[in-house]
Amino acid sequence: MLRKRLPFVAILCLVVLSGAGTEADEGMWPLYDLHKLPFDSLKVRGLMLEPEQIYSPEGGGIAFAVVSIGATGSFVSPNGLIITNHHVAFGAVQKQSTVERNYLRDGFYAASRGEEIPAIGYNVYVTLSIKDVTGRVLDVVDEGMGDLERYRAIERMSKEIIREAEEGRDVKCRLAKMLGGTQYVLYTYFKIRDVRIVYAPPRSIGEYGGDIDNWMWPRHTGDFSFLRAYVAPDGSSAEFSEDNVPYHPNVYLPISSAGVRGGDFVMMMGFPGHTDRYASSYYIDYLVNYYYPQRIRILEDRLAMLEDASAREASVSLRLASRIGSVNNRLKKSYGVREGFKRYDVLRKKRGEERLLTEFLTADPVLTREFGFVLPELERLHQEKSRTRDKDFILSWMQYSNDFLDMAVTLHKWAAEREKDDIDREPGYQDRDSISTKEWLKDAQINLVPAVDKETLKYFMWRGWELPAGQKIQALEDISAGKRGKKREKRLSEFVEKLYKQTRVGEVEWRLRMFRMTRKDLEKLNDPFIELAIALKPEIDELEERDKEFSGAQSRLAPKLIAAYAKWKQEKIYPDANGTMRFNHGSVEAFSPRDAVRYDYITGLSGVMEKETGKDPFIVPAELKWVYEQKDFGNYLDPITGEIPVNLLTTNDGTGGNSGSPVINGKGELIGLDFDGNYESVSDDYLYNPELSRSIIVDIRYVLFLIDKVYHLDGLLQELTIH
Amino acid sequence: MLRKRLPFVAILCLVVLSGAGTEADEGMWPLYDLHKLPFDSLKVRGLMLEPEQIYSPEGGGIAFAVVSIGATGSFVSPNGLIITNHHVAFGAVQKQSTVERNYLRDGFYAASRGEEIPAIGYNVYVTLSIKDVTGRVLDVVDEGMGDLERYRAIERMSKEIIREAEEGRDVKCRLAKMLGGTQYVLYTYFKIRDVRIVYAPPRSIGEYGGDIDNWMWPRHTGDFSFLRAYVAPDGSSAEFSEDNVPYHPNVYLPISSAGVRGGDFVMMMGFPGHTDRYASSYYIDYLVNYYYPQRIRILEDRLAMLEDASAREASVSLRLASRIGSVNNRLKKSYGVREGFKRYDVLRKKRGEERLLTEFLTADPVLTREFGFVLPELERLHQEKSRTRDKDFILSWMQYSNDFLDMAVTLHKWAAEREKDDIDREPGYQDRDSISTKEWLKDAQINLVPAVDKETLKYFMWRGWELPAGQKIQALEDISAGKRGKKREKRLSEFVEKLYKQTRVGEVEWRLRMFRMTRKDLEKLNDPFIELAIALKPEIDELEERDKEFSGAQSRLAPKLIAAYAKWKQEKIYPDANGTMRFNHGSVEAFSPRDAVRYDYITGLSGVMEKETGKDPFIVPAELKWVYEQKDFGNYLDPITGEIPVNLLTTNDGTGGNSGSPVINGKGELIGLDFDGNYESVSDDYLYNPELSRSIIVDIRYVLFLIDKVYHLDGLLQELTIH
Repeated sequence: MLRKRLPFVAILCLVVLSGAGTEADEGMWPLYDLHKLPFDSLKVRGLMLEPEQIYSPEGGGIAFAVVSIGATGSFVSPNGLIITNHHVAFGAVQKQSTVERNYLRDGFYAASRGEEIPAIGYNVYVTLSIKDVTGRVLDVVDEGMGDLERYRAIERMSKEIIREAEEGRDVKCRLAKMLGGTQYVLYTYFKIRDVRIVYAPPRSIGEYGGDIDNWMWPRHTGDFSFLRAYVAPDGSSAEFSEDNVPYHPNVYLPISSAGVRGGDFVMMMGFPGHTDRYASSYYIDYLVNYYYPQRIRILEDRLAMLEDASAREASVSLRLASRIGSVNNRLKKSYGVREGFKRYDVLRKKRGEERLLTEFLTADPVLTREFGFVLPELERLHQEKSRTRDKDFILSWMQYSNDFLDMAVTLHKWAAEREKDDIDREPGYQDRDSISTKEWLKDAQINLVPAVDKETLKYFMWRGWELPAGQKIQALEDISAGKRGKKREKRLSEFVEKLYKQTRVGEVEWRLRMFRMTRKDLEKLNDPFIELAIALKPEIDELEERDKEFSGAQSRLAPKLIAAYAKWKQEKIYPDANGTMRFNHGSVEAFSPRDAVRYDYITGLSGVMEKETGKDPFIVPAELKWVYEQKDFGNYLDPITGEIPVNLLTTNDGTGGNSGSPVINGKGELIGLDFDGNYESVSDDYLYNPELSRSIIVDIRYVLFLIDKVYHLDGLLQELTIH
Repeated sequence: MLRKRLPFVAILCLVVLSGAGTEADEGMWPLYDLHKLPFDSLKVRGLMLEPEQIYSPEGGGIAFAVVSIGATGSFVSPNGLIITNHHVAFGAVQKQSTVERNYLRDGFYAASRGEEIPAIGYNVYVTLSIKDVTGRVLDVVDEGMGDLERYRAIERMSKEIIREAEEGRDVKCRLAKMLGGTQYVLYTYFKIRDVRIVYAPPRSIGEYGGDIDNWMWPRHTGDFSFLRAYVAPDGSSAEFSEDNVPYHPNVYLPISSAGVRGGDFVMMMGFPGHTDRYASSYYIDYLVNYYYPQRIRILEDRLAMLEDASAREASVSLRLASRIGSVNNRLKKSYGVREGFKRYDVLRKKRGEERLLTEFLTADPVLTREFGFVLPELERLHQEKSRTRDKDFILSWMQYSNDFLDMAVTLHKWAAEREKDDIDREPGYQDRDSISTKEWLKDAQINLVPAVDKETLKYFMWRGWELPAGQKIQALEDISAGKRGKKREKRLSEFVEKLYKQTRVGEVEWRLRMFRMTRKDLEKLNDPFIELAIALKPEIDELEERDKEFSGAQSRLAPKLIAAYAKWKQEKIYPDANGTMRFNHGSVEAFSPRDAVRYDYITGLSGVMEKETGKDPFIVPAELKWVYEQKDFGNYLDPITGEIPVNLLTTNDGTGGNSGSPVINGKGELIGLDFDGNYESVSDDYLYNPELSRSIIVDIRYVLFLIDKVYHLDGLLQELTIH
């Protein structure tokens, strides 16, 4: 009954589904491709910046305020202050929380720099330069190469390019494959290793609605936090130290307190992680009929194990919070993808598209010669791959779901790889990767819960034993030694108990010592987890070889497939997301999820109150309630709704990794942070849905209202540049 | 992806939440109170009729086209054609359905009169006259009377008035108590006993969305059917006979094919069953904290029993369909009421209101003397009543949930009552009730499922045994004979098996024979169910005495309470619903259920397609799909949405019993049938919610589209008067 009756004109504005632009807002554009965008029409929609003011290869433009931090953040002060999502900073806050000093629950604020605390495990990557190196990479391949050979040639050249670029400089480089291997781009970053927490709101604000509201609209989440980047006094990248000083970015974003209205132009920049929009129907078939069903099964089982463990003890609960959140999020996304596949009939559409493409190619002998073989060969490749899919699936999920095993495999592989010349090693096992590996080995201790890890391992060993004949994992078979039923259960129990009892992989000092050891010394330890890693190694190596060969074939075929589509559709093409920075245009826009239902583009504080149940995840902090009742809203009311704005919908095309992405108005001012997509957008990773896909944004006015009126964080407020 | 992008102006129209009128649309007005309504402002809103054109005491007006038929129907042709809801005619269609000839599933259409089939158990009541008889009734009571005495005096006078009114005439009368006993009104009806089914759509249209969508918006249900009323050739009321002829009503409703728009004035007439809007907080307390929790428990248990039985066998499934639907509906409504009580804080509000009323009365010694005693005395009455509430609850639910027991108790009571003079008998057991009782005893056979009945009886016997000390039911205690645990279970099993094995209450011929017997002969049969009825009689009689005394007290206090409220609030007051005909004004209007969500006032055929899952209750018949794909929409498209309209929202104030009520535009043309309320309106029976309550209407254009374009029922279409 709190909802106000809006004036007629207001309703008008809230539901406007402006046809213009929506269809055209698909695309995650690399910065070097900005010239492909229709700037004339973007200016009509409200963009007031020139392309060079967004990104100039020479180093200018607001894009340089945007940083990678696991997901995305952006500088909002000259003193290294970064704004990102609460759920992006979540792990940092959680690692600093204890049952007694529960920053996760209560929020954290450092009123002065001295009070800022380390964001353990967090690194900030500031983009320095972006360079096309396609010529050098493709020079090393030729038509006659086999797929594995092809893969290795590209990998080796990639490593050489990176080594050259990093040599003698305080930088981190990454070579990104674009459009399936059509293009190779070198990204050079300055890596900031001393990141601190400045402010995180209470979880009941930052995660209001929790898993229930995840992927949902209407949304009412204050999903933001502030961090700060620190460097050595000489400006170089450094580990945490009292002597470090705030980093001074070249660019930072001003903030608009004026707000947005339906139809307003907005742009977004961030680091979307992964999409597969050019995937063949054979791959989609695998996803629909194999991968997602399997993934959902494993995630559901994992979630049950984690939640059981979490319910048993408060301290464990805190250590598992981040992991539970992540599994929950991946699970809900997987459900959404599954539903999206069905609802939008993705597989049928892909097949239909490929049929039409084939007809187009067949009509022209030149095109047939150039592209005709691609789809049949992709089909053959996927058939080949499906032969070992059960085994491959369990093997990789087993390793990455189990901390002890993951560390043991990694430690042993490091020892083995270190025997080679640096340039010959697997990516991720070169000297340049040593610092981040050590950080990982160290930081992992905080959330290590052996009891849960043990259960996970048992689970995967069972799953391994259940694999079909011909796909058995030898190392696991050796453990079960042909036992069945109760006897096998007993064997499993004994084996796993011994493993965890005798291993030293669970001790941080030991892990770091193991990291320095030669392979011989490491193997001499007879640590049972290292021994398990050694036993699994042949199978893991084979899996990796298969993947490499597949990847080599992909890098040969995918560019052809994409080029064929481009010829057929005559469209400008953007590369799939791959963790590199992208630009999106869009507008603030409502949508209609189904007949007779319309969602406004904005939610308000009364909606927060309306959802309150007093039970997690719908608890409203007393301070917020008080200010709401006092109506102490300052200048933060939205002029249309007459409410404190909370979240917004925009048509920007985003995916995982875009979390925390700054959403920017036509003048280049920050108006909000991307933190989610609506449920209708979940299957966008495979097929974009222009009518219904929306990004969910936390309105920067909600952020300002909270830090100003509710929590009175004057220092933080003053550091921001508010227009 | 089917949803069309609407032109801007369309969106505007769909979401208009016109402030005007909503608040004022509360009220279920008796026809004789039409003069209390603000006709001037209704005319501004679009009403074009004078009050006399709606209802004139002399017999004119469209109200006379509206008939009671369990719920509501209305005449739509001069030849007795009646339109009502599919769910109102459901029982009739179901009783005529078999596994082989499944009209329920496939729909039914009689292309000629000769093919029309009896709507077994259905009677149509046509209003003949409405007369205030308050003076005569209240003449027989005086201040000095005890509550039971008062009750009996009123009851006796009621029976006399009815006898006089019915004597020598082919009519049925009912004396309705209004405003708690402030007013008594005599309704005279012509009862039509030969009712036939003309057309029922397939269940997948008439019940599309089923229990999932029940009480929900957006809705996509084609909830309509056509029946026809027949009378003897001389125009008198008669049982089914080949010789009967269609009834010719004085008035029937023309149909508008022009449709409505948001904000349009609409009126509704029908027979709402029961509301309690003037209930005291003591009664609300009972409902919130006792009645609804108990009711929900029993309905949940019954539903489980019915669904189990239904899942076992197809033929039983068909016989139980109507009952399952009804239990489901009552259960969902009960959940809604429980939620509404909580959401709108009904008990706290009532208490607050009574506190203010008391303050108002206390301020004036005259008012205090006249009304001051009412609330304290109501409190005392409810306290008194709560002492036997567990027993009373189980006793009445046991009887009415069990067909065999209900019939046995009724048969024995008939035999007992028949020993008295007609005027001295309990209402319902007079000669005037004999025909309908016989019909009931006969028609009940069709859906009798002894196995389910048996389970129900066992359930209630257990519930009876679990009653607290001091509230035991003696007849049940005698059966258990002090046994406990397994032994009691065994005893129960034996007792019930014997009951059903030996009784003849389950045989229709025997029941009708028993109905004619004297008490002595009936008791000599030694039928075990009749014996159970005899054993329960003392307790049932006591319960009835308690209820009568309570009712007598209510008829003394309720008018005072209502008068006190009227004095305090200075408002025009309408009586609670009680199954008599009522008039409602309203308008077509959208609503917003929560922050950032807006519901349009209309749904369309694309929404039907969108909801399709291919599984019950979301199956779209092939014929409808075909026409949808062919876009063969005729003139039935809504000019705003460009779609075939399906359902509408209006602000008319309705409740159970209003199902099938004609919804009529300002010109007096039928534009739709009420068939449900939204979830937000479910607790309206106790506290009206003006902002969010909506009635859900099947748009008459959907009806016309289906019978014309989809099913080509030319005869039916031609019989209607379509403007």
